[in-house]
Amino acid sequence: MAEDRVLRVRALLESVRAEGRSALTAPEGKVLADAYGIAVPGEEVAADVEEAVACAARFGGPVVMKIVSPDILHKTDAGGVVVGVEGAADVRAAFRRIVGNARAFDPAARIEGVQVQELLPRGQEVIVGAVTDPTFGKVVAFGLGGVLVEVLRDVTFRLAPVGTDEALSMLDSIRSAEILRGVRGGAAVDRWAVAEQIRRVSELVVDFPEIAEVDLNPVIATPDGAVAADIRVILSEGVPKRRRTYGREEILRSMRRLMQPRSVAVIGASGEPGKIGNSVMRNLIDGGFPGEIHPVNPRADDILGRKAYKSVTEVPGEVDVAVFAIPARLVAAALEEVGRKGIPNAVLIPSGFAETGEQALQDEIVAIGERHGVRLLGPNIYGYYSTWQDLCVTFCTPYDVKGGVALTSQSGGIGMAILGFARTTRTGVSAIVGLGNKSDIDEDDLLTWFGEDPNTECIAMHLEDLKDGRAFVEAARATVPRKPVVVLKAGRTSAGARAAGSHTGALAGDDAVYDDVLRQAGVIRAPGLNEMLEFARALPVLPAPKGDNVVIITGAGGSGVLLSDAVVDSGLSLMEIPEDLDAAFRAFIPPFGAAGNPIDITGGEPPSTYEATIRLGLEDPRIHALVLGYWHTIVTPPMVFAELTARVVEEFRARGIEKPVVASLAGDVEVEEACAYLFERGVVAYPYTTEKPVAVLGAKYAWARAAGLLPGGGR
Amino acid sequence: MAEDRVLRVRALLESVRAEGRSALTAPEGKVLADAYGIAVPGEEVAADVEEAVACAARFGGPVVMKIVSPDILHKTDAGGVVVGVEGAADVRAAFRRIVGNARAFDPAARIEGVQVQELLPRGQEVIVGAVTDPTFGKVVAFGLGGVLVEVLRDVTFRLAPVGTDEALSMLDSIRSAEILRGVRGGAAVDRWAVAEQIRRVSELVVDFPEIAEVDLNPVIATPDGAVAADIRVILSEGVPKRRRTYGREEILRSMRRLMQPRSVAVIGASGEPGKIGNSVMRNLIDGGFPGEIHPVNPRADDILGRKAYKSVTEVPGEVDVAVFAIPARLVAAALEEVGRKGIPNAVLIPSGFAETGEQALQDEIVAIGERHGVRLLGPNIYGYYSTWQDLCVTFCTPYDVKGGVALTSQSGGIGMAILGFARTTRTGVSAIVGLGNKSDIDEDDLLTWFGEDPNTECIAMHLEDLKDGRAFVEAARATVPRKPVVVLKAGRTSAGARAAGSHTGALAGDDAVYDDVLRQAGVIRAPGLNEMLEFARALPVLPAPKGDNVVIITGAGGSGVLLSDAVVDSGLSLMEIPEDLDAAFRAFIPPFGAAGNPIDITGGEPPSTYEATIRLGLEDPRIHALVLGYWHTIVTPPMVFAELTARVVEEFRARGIEKPVVASLAGDVEVEEACAYLFERGVVAYPYTTEKPVAVLGAKYAWARAAGLLPGGGR
Repeated sequence: MAEDRVLRVRALLESVRAEGRSALTAPEGKVLADAYGIAVPGEEVAADVEEAVACAARFGGPVVMKIVSPDILHKTDAGGVVVGVEGAADVRAAFRRIVGNARAFDPAARIEGVQVQELLPRGQEVIVGAVTDPTFGKVVAFGLGGVLVEVLRDVTFRLAPVGTDEALSMLDSIRSAEILRGVRGGAAVDRWAVAEQIRRVSELVVDFPEIAEVDLNPVIATPDGAVAADIRVILSEGVPKRRRTYGREEILRSMRRLMQPRSVAVIGASGEPGKIGNSVMRNLIDGGFPGEIHPVNPRADDILGRKAYKSVTEVPGEVDVAVFAIPARLVAAALEEVGRKGIPNAVLIPSGFAETGEQALQDEIVAIGERHGVRLLGPNIYGYYSTWQDLCVTFCTPYDVKGGVALTSQSGGIGMAILGFARTTRTGVSAIVGLGNKSDIDEDDLLTWFGEDPNTECIAMHLEDLKDGRAFVEAARATVPRKPVVVLKAGRTSAGARAAGSHTGALAGDDAVYDDVLRQAGVIRAPGLNEMLEFARALPVLPAPKGDNVVIITGAGGSGVLLSDAVVDSGLSLMEIPEDLDAAFRAFIPPFGAAGNPIDITGGEPPSTYEATIRLGLEDPRIHALVLGYWHTIVTPPMVFAELTARVVEEFRARGIEKPVVASLAGDVEVEEACAYLFERGVVAYPYTTEKPVAVLGAKYAWARAAGLLPGGGR
Repeated sequence: MAEDRVLRVRALLESVRAEGRSALTAPEGKVLADAYGIAVPGEEVAADVEEAVACAARFGGPVVMKIVSPDILHKTDAGGVVVGVEGAADVRAAFRRIVGNARAFDPAARIEGVQVQELLPRGQEVIVGAVTDPTFGKVVAFGLGGVLVEVLRDVTFRLAPVGTDEALSMLDSIRSAEILRGVRGGAAVDRWAVAEQIRRVSELVVDFPEIAEVDLNPVIATPDGAVAADIRVILSEGVPKRRRTYGREEILRSMRRLMQPRSVAVIGASGEPGKIGNSVMRNLIDGGFPGEIHPVNPRADDILGRKAYKSVTEVPGEVDVAVFAIPARLVAAALEEVGRKGIPNAVLIPSGFAETGEQALQDEIVAIGERHGVRLLGPNIYGYYSTWQDLCVTFCTPYDVKGGVALTSQSGGIGMAILGFARTTRTGVSAIVGLGNKSDIDEDDLLTWFGEDPNTECIAMHLEDLKDGRAFVEAARATVPRKPVVVLKAGRTSAGARAAGSHTGALAGDDAVYDDVLRQAGVIRAPGLNEMLEFARALPVLPAPKGDNVVIITGAGGSGVLLSDAVVDSGLSLMEIPEDLDAAFRAFIPPFGAAGNPIDITGGEPPSTYEATIRLGLEDPRIHALVLGYWHTIVTPPMVFAELTARVVEEFRARGIEKPVVASLAGDVEVEEACAYLFERGVVAYPYTTEKPVAVLGAKYAWARAAGLLPGGGR
């Protein structure tokens, strides 16, 4: 049956193509709908009265009946249309009336019968569709129909195919979701029937890659079902070819040797300061890399005290990484040698490839890499850092603060911002990787590796595009349950007008699809560069929350109000404090302080009040995360607050009680030192902002939900 | 006529009140609508055929005709209703048919005539309403009708009364504004008629403060008019009393003496370190205040080398400010003395008033202040700074970086954050003022003063509420044309459910009204604490833009993409570069660089390329603002970039060419020093973020538009 329908649709699509058309007619669309069980109004032509009665009985509700005659163009003028006929007697009467009217109108007309069509019910108009996204391939779309949605663009996307649960989740993902549940006394729609329309459309487009766009617009959703009033199908010009892909084990094997090499060759190594080949050598040596470092340079015997080789083929033993510090035009020849030597990784620092219009040169090196099985990082990159290996393969300055975050950037400028930010904030890093032109190795290779890398606890990626959105989503889905993935997707607003033949196509701005698909993959999307950097710095520091109850403890009432705003903005829940807990907090704070949440301990309190309330917050198992608001006073100076908070948090950690604690410090410049002290000890603290600490907590919660660590979580 | 209608409505409202009702009936609502020219469907009772014809002719379109008889309850059953009658002949026929049917139905029925009612046209449903906001008083609301708007809360507010232009502006202020202009072939609605409904509702509620809420829901808007299908009016329980207000000149007179005093008395001055009265004395002296400083303390003769007085009444000569550094319970008595001495300002540092539940104590001091004409700052504050006077009236640490921004905070904690942030960023400040409980002096007094103060170029205010929203709006409107006003309104998200009897009331969450009203007043609303601080620091540094054309010049392509995102997010316009200008930029950049906008000069360029392109950007009069993206390289190190940029900007400034220039520096930690260097020289520069510099530029543009400095600006 399933094969049968594929054959049927394939034959139809081929005939459409044969006619040089790309849009299907309405009857052709109905053939596809019927094949895939997409509900459309039933319609049949009845040759006589009893056939008409049988048709109407099959549809079950009221029908529209219309004369079918090649000689009658304006059916209504001929009295050839009756709307809302129900029951055998009425169908019989209507059939006779229509035929009688037609005969009277034009006695010579050839009458082929009467079309019996299901009457579309009144209901909520929704749109179901599918488009072919350049990054993610087939995606399905769902939104409310009508003019408002078109204006407000309230629509959601998923990768096709979708299962029933995922299709159902789309009904909750639009801003106006409430309408489908029934508002102002309206009835809820049949969610399952709507989801089924989405699921079937997704099956159709997956089975037929040549279908570029499908529009069911509108689908009439009622409490009893969902019927597409119209189906529009557009074929694509051609199916894009898939790039070469590597299996998971292949990726891990070469990535392990890239990130944990024992032997590195530097092609174009130089003893002359100012040259890139010199900077790379110095960084390798000064960075303390304990493995072998082999300079390659045909015009030197010795570079920085190490024996230099004329060619990489002469380097003794196995080499894991060949770093290229030579001009673009020399890369191909050297890469051939790297291939012959069996080196699995080439790090291509030079620019002068696709980014300057030299696409042919880039295609050439990609072909060489594929032929020899050499994976290429770059070209046009600053290089990469693997801090736990003391490995700085870059012409920039070394970086040695070991820690849990792996950062990648498509752009060199952003890479430099990562380095500067990391250095000034002493962010603990496992790796920094430049991706540049992404001629081969890209984000999904890195995600696959960092997902396995025990030193990496969080991955943050700046990207402008994805070569293969589906491979990225697959890698992200495999990684997210173990560690957070933060993405800064640049070019959000440049989507602009994409030529589209369907309604759904017009709604699918690039970023709208990215946004939904990344969220579904459990990725945390950073709204800007600074947020990506802050999330990268802070997420590995915070433990995962074990529940939704966030409590604010503040010395400054003013900060408490702003922190509450931030909690709501970050999608977190202020815990409703039970009476016994409220009383317990009240015992520590002045009578004019406010319990509830925020818990306002008031400004003039000594360190002991901060300590007692923080202890209670960590102790009570109903509380899952703490947001602290500190107010600089003479009674509790910044470093006193920092010391007591860090000590209490550490004490509970030692007892096995770990909750995320973030803090906003309001005060004079001494609070900066206090924040640094706290951060190093696992409390994410910022001066002069109430938003940042809570945004970080929000990101941690977003991850915990995506990773299925919280009740009501999952994707 | 106008008085007439007021009398008519007043009489009606009084009769409603007399019956103990707060909601008007539909016919009562119609009386108000008719009195204020709010269009509702016309309806009249015609006693005979010719009257019916005359009525229908007056309404002009199709009408509904209905039998009027106390004996016929179900008019339709009696054949007593005809819908859609048009033209004298049809009206006559319908009248006769209706009366005939009624007679046939019940020969005994008393027939009083036939009601002739305008037929409501089909059209776009909109909502027009008015509510009484606790902060701003009467506000009018406008939104699209129907279930979607209810769910998406797409509604806009204005202070009542509104003029025609302001009412028209509301039609453009909703997210779904496009619908009113006609989409998908739909016709545009009669905007003027809709605006007229809003304007008239606003007149009604201004004339009758006792009207709490009005709902026209829905109003049917068509290309030919706008008619309210229903009018709902709810009366309030009572009208709140107005607080005591001061005139502009009164405010300026006392504020000038507060902010530019010649003589300050410190009540509770102390020689004992650790006491607040000691800190205040030290800060006054160490801050370098050149005026007279008089300690007041009954138990000392001399404090910190100055003669102490037993009572403020003994201090010789005029005193401008009395600072209170004594416990709350002693304040009232001392304030009496301050009043007797004729001191115009009392700065009330102590806490222990309304914020700890001691409302009576606060009411007492307010009464004393009003009796003597003493203006009160506080109580429950850290004090205030007036830097250009070298005046630090506070127990915190001194602050002496003179500059253009005046900052105020309702909360002490936020005040401390202001101080710390200002110190660490060396923000140039004209004043920092704590407002605390705002028992008397509040934001509108300060705005009035800072608007006049020649040292203040920008005002930034943290507030949790406004005592008198209208006074604030008035002060803001007077100030904004001269200098930007930034507001951080805390408690955005706490609005919660307000009990409301009308639809409009339910839509008017506190923050929705604040947001629209503040925007209308031309205020820049900071989304969070850090943004308020950054805007405060940066806005006085940037010159005002003279047009909308923003150009990005970047060394890092990656930054260029992120900066473009930020430009769109901040509501700015990337200039479309004309061909000649494009060619001019191209002359300076490598062939593989990108002209257009962003102008990507590429990463490896020397200082001369940055300089040439920045020069061109400043020189060409079609460009109005520059966003620079710097990429740290060996060829152009951070300080080289900073020096050249500052030099070129200064050179143009000297030639009278001033454009806002902001910069994002991507690089290693040296970029931090470069940013500080640039900031001091009028270029707003940040490291590790592409969003912040553009957000600041966006704020400057928002102000320039509100101040009417840009084409297409105005409120």
